[in-house]
Amino acid sequence: MTIKVAVLGAHGRVGQAVVAGVEESDEFTLHASVGRDDALSAIDGADVAVDFTTPDAVMDNLKYCIEHGVHCVVGTTGFDDERYDTVRSWLEKNPEVGVLVAPNFAISAVLTMVFAAQAAKFFESAEVVEFHHPNKLDAPSGTAVKTAQAIAQARKDAGIDPMPDATKQALDGSRGALVGDVPVHAVRMTGMVAHEEVIFGTQDQSLTIRQDSYGRESFVPGVLTGVRQIADRPGLTIGLESFLDL
Amino acid sequence: MTIKVAVLGAHGRVGQAVVAGVEESDEFTLHASVGRDDALSAIDGADVAVDFTTPDAVMDNLKYCIEHGVHCVVGTTGFDDERYDTVRSWLEKNPEVGVLVAPNFAISAVLTMVFAAQAAKFFESAEVVEFHHPNKLDAPSGTAVKTAQAIAQARKDAGIDPMPDATKQALDGSRGALVGDVPVHAVRMTGMVAHEEVIFGTQDQSLTIRQDSYGRESFVPGVLTGVRQIADRPGLTIGLESFLDL
Amino acid sequence: MTIKVAVLGAHGRVGQAVVAGVEESDEFTLHASVGRDDALSAIDGADVAVDFTTPDAVMDNLKYCIEHGVHCVVGTTGFDDERYDTVRSWLEKNPEVGVLVAPNFAISAVLTMVFAAQAAKFFESAEVVEFHHPNKLDAPSGTAVKTAQAIAQARKDAGIDPMPDATKQALDGSRGALVGDVPVHAVRMTGMVAHEEVIFGTQDQSLTIRQDSYGRESFVPGVLTGVRQIADRPGLTIGLESFLDL
Amino acid sequence: MTIKVAVLGAHGRVGQAVVAGVEESDEFTLHASVGRDDALSAIDGADVAVDFTTPDAVMDNLKYCIEHGVHCVVGTTGFDDERYDTVRSWLEKNPEVGVLVAPNFAISAVLTMVFAAQAAKFFESAEVVEFHHPNKLDAPSGTAVKTAQAIAQARKDAGIDPMPDATKQALDGSRGALVGDVPVHAVRMTGMVAHEEVIFGTQDQSLTIRQDSYGRESFVPGVLTGVRQIADRPGLTIGLESFLDL
Repeated sequence: MTIKVAVLGAHGRVGQAVVAGVEESDEFTLHASVGRDDALSAIDGADVAVDFTTPDAVMDNLKYCIEHGVHCVVGTTGFDDERYDTVRSWLEKNPEVGVLVAPNFAISAVLTMVFAAQAAKFFESAEVVEFHHPNKLDAPSGTAVKTAQAIAQARKDAGIDPMPDATKQALDGSRGALVGDVPVHAVRMTGMVAHEEVIFGTQDQSLTIRQDSYGRESFVPGVLTGVRQIADRPGLTIGLESFLDL
Repeated sequence: MTIKVAVLGAHGRVGQAVVAGVEESDEFTLHASVGRDDALSAIDGADVAVDFTTPDAVMDNLKYCIEHGVHCVVGTTGFDDERYDTVRSWLEKNPEVGVLVAPNFAISAVLTMVFAAQAAKFFESAEVVEFHHPNKLDAPSGTAVKTAQAIAQARKDAGIDPMPDATKQALDGSRGALVGDVPVHAVRMTGMVAHEEVIFGTQDQSLTIRQDSYGRESFVPGVLTGVRQIADRPGLTIGLESFLDL
Repeated sequence: MTIKVAVLGAHGRVGQAVVAGVEESDEFTLHASVGRDDALSAIDGADVAVDFTTPDAVMDNLKYCIEHGVHCVVGTTGFDDERYDTVRSWLEKNPEVGVLVAPNFAISAVLTMVFAAQAAKFFESAEVVEFHHPNKLDAPSGTAVKTAQAIAQARKDAGIDPMPDATKQALDGSRGALVGDVPVHAVRMTGMVAHEEVIFGTQDQSLTIRQDSYGRESFVPGVLTGVRQIADRPGLTIGLESFLDL
Repeated sequence: MTIKVAVLGAHGRVGQAVVAGVEESDEFTLHASVGRDDALSAIDGADVAVDFTTPDAVMDNLKYCIEHGVHCVVGTTGFDDERYDTVRSWLEKNPEVGVLVAPNFAISAVLTMVFAAQAAKFFESAEVVEFHHPNKLDAPSGTAVKTAQAIAQARKDAGIDPMPDATKQALDGSRGALVGDVPVHAVRMTGMVAHEEVIFGTQDQSLTIRQDSYGRESFVPGVLTGVRQIADRPGLTIGLESFLDL
């Protein structure tokens, strides 16, 4: 039996890619493509709704889905603790429904973060270098900051010594931005898309975990992983990593 | 209280590096540096023995250590199932003793293998490229083969489709050697030491896990990780990975 | 004064990208967008014609342009020595016209090849690893083969010793395909586009030249480099490299 | 006929590696190993002197060699314009003698700099990332600064537009240190030796030139390149790059 999927925000750039991903696989049936002007009742009867809409629309969508027993996989931005609490309160009345909200569905980026956190305690040094197209407004990327935070936390938990660094004379900025105790460097480069490299070093060796996103559909495999599992994960889950069964 | 360490094969290239590693850290005391002509009784009173000797010598050393209640961390080669069974039989009579035998103590290499096995099920494609100095006799390296086997097994367990590959016209050898269904490529390059790259790809993204060994002391952090934990791991353990608490 | 550009094959995937590139820059004016059903007279008055059509169409287009004094930048495939001789014979009667035919206009790929040929004589070892999407029919790529040939030729010209390689025991294919004396490895990976890595090694060091194409418009900067210079390069030029003034 | 080589500073770490390199090759004969307490007359009769001594000693050594008609290949640090002028004045009286002074003899590093300068004009974006062991005192490395300066100069000469960078919100230091208009990032990592990566980007593509030094003997091939050619290069040459015949 296939999973019936409704895509909300189906006419947006991301939504279209999700629709294509759903249609290409035997595991799924496209139940509905819902645009901003369509009635939410189009969702009725779906197993899972995927929401890539807007911060304005997403809460109404979630309420409707939860009340109608439709599981949700959400990539829309704009969530904060208050919104998460609201979602949890809706779920209390519908405890069999699962909702996954994730800021990043690129599975290679999520794995990079998870592996980096696991590796951190074994290495004296750790730095993050991320590369993006030059139209990006923030530096470093949110993903790089989260990765560095996870590394810093793992180092702290393991009681690791401060990173060795004998630098006495430095050009301002050359040693990157510190996130916790982890230097993060951001490269902006025409032609590139979104890439992240985490580098660890200890005696006579280094470990590099690198993620490359080559295009805008890199989140599709992660969304489908969420769709596949959400029925077995009642309640609210934040972040794709807990669905990966590592 | 520090851990008292006896190093067997202490005058060999590897043994010397272990001795130096033990001496540099406050966690350990060097209890004995045992060369091939020294009496094994020098081990008496040690908490842990590290063995980087020869296939000829290692079994006698292990028997002595186990019978004298000294935990063992072993990097010596030449182990097979028969030897493992022999070690297990000795341990039955001394169940509180721990023995760790590992073919590779480079922690970056062990992590590469572990992460590769975890990541495999999320990607359509996976290949391994390893790089070594040109004096290496075998291609691919044992580590690369083990890594590819772990990926192939994980793909099989997850029921992943065969890797897509439309190649119709190929120069012989260009697509690498298949280990399971994973292509493995070996580069031999003056100046390089030992390096391994595992590459995974799926829709619009790739994940690369790369390990670089720059010198002969890259196994020391892994050996010391073993020494630190062996007292809490009675019985025989094969492979450093189960000591990493990932 | 801007350069007036006619694009032939303007409705094809490549042609569209060239049209966009021409329109975005102040250096150029789009003189004509010529599709397969348009009369060639649309070219009249252009300074330069860019041809990304088909092997069937390109020779007629070139004849027309040369006879009408329009310089040509050609990315269409299917050229052989006979075709080049024909073009040269047309140019004899119109010696002021310049024609550039290039198999690869991705400037990063062309530079990789040029630099690799220059570097080759300084290194004991050289190998090529290329990475492409899994729908590619040939392995290794034509560009990788050409790069390896250039390296092999440079090594021969410099009288360099054979590459050191002590491999005694190898899995079939693991050491790549030999092009001249240069091992070439081809990786096929979902999500990737077109990437090439040339690695050189000598005492205690390596040099890596890597080229990444992230999308289908990577040839545009090279085409525009050709358009900019073709008026000053009368006669037939094969390959973008001689336009780069390195 | 082999080239007779005297090594000054022969007992230092670098000098020993040069001595070994000279002895290993049929092209050279070791004429003298000169330590700090040896008389300079040991140089007499050599074709070429290699000087890896100290800023205090090098000028006396050079004067002696030039006056005795011995060509010089010099890796000793501490040269400034005044010293170069002094050397030139000595060479005026001995115009057949060649002197090469180079700050970096790692041939892979020199080629990286040369290729980076050549490639710069073809790309909108350029950044440098260098990686060193954590005991290094300065950041970025002198080589990375020189590379960035060469790129900045080439961009200026070609009249290239400023690099695109829409960053509005940045953590301090994340975008690196500007050398000219080129961002330079410095990573400090236990286990690493000396590595430099130059990254260029333009439409849908990037070019990466990377240099890895794995050990202290990476300058030997460059020194021997100098020794091989110095007899044909009378006068003072600064920098190995002009000996490379690219």
